[in-house]
Amino acid sequence: MPALDVQIDKVFHALGDPTRRAIVERVSHGPISVSKLVEPLGISLAAVVQHLQILEDSGLVNSQKVGRVRTCQIELRGFSLAEKWIGERRSMWERRLDKLGDLLAEEDDE
Amino acid sequence: MPALDVQIDKVFHALGDPTRRAIVERVSHGPISVSKLVEPLGISLAAVVQHLQILEDSGLVNSQKVGRVRTCQIELRGFSLAEKWIGERRSMWERRLDKLGDLLAEEDDE
Repeated sequence: MPALDVQIDKVFHALGDPTRRAIVERVSHGPISVSKLVEPLGISLAAVVQHLQILEDSGLVNSQKVGRVRTCQIELRGFSLAEKWIGERRSMWERRLDKLGDLLAEEDDE
Repeated sequence: MPALDVQIDKVFHALGDPTRRAIVERVSHGPISVSKLVEPLGISLAAVVQHLQILEDSGLVNSQKVGRVRTCQIELRGFSLAEKWIGERRSMWERRLDKLGDLLAEEDDE
């Protein structure tokens, strides 16, 4: 699989999990420490760290450790990849529908 | 989980698989019969049908059977859902960055 495809795989896989989407949701409101992320999720710190690893690997979130506090924020790279992939498929389909419409209009004219 | 969230779950899960993305890719070029879809994928008809079921459940593809031929085409509902979800998170984050920029500019003015 080409590198880009591997990356898109990771992005969609990461977003396919409700807990990871809840993390993205929370992080999109602004930078937040890992410990503050954990509480409302009702799962263990270890589980959150695992989800964060998957989100970081797919370019949806990044984190920085300052002293003993690790802070997470949104990373736009993964979002752009997903938007690009979806948008390309959608516009290919819409062009196809337009062409079909043109063909039907031509037939009407004849 | 609310119904909308279940649906988004399905869309991202469906797109997280390279074979299913290859099917979406092919179908986005125009309607195609299931038998024509199978050949280039190099997997069994049964496997393709299973993938199609997942794509139909998530609103990314739909199919119609006329006589003995089942034809697949793109369904935009799933694409719109995914675009909406991604776009909302991204714009929330961008608004947050803008606000931060404004705050910094105000501090510079003082």
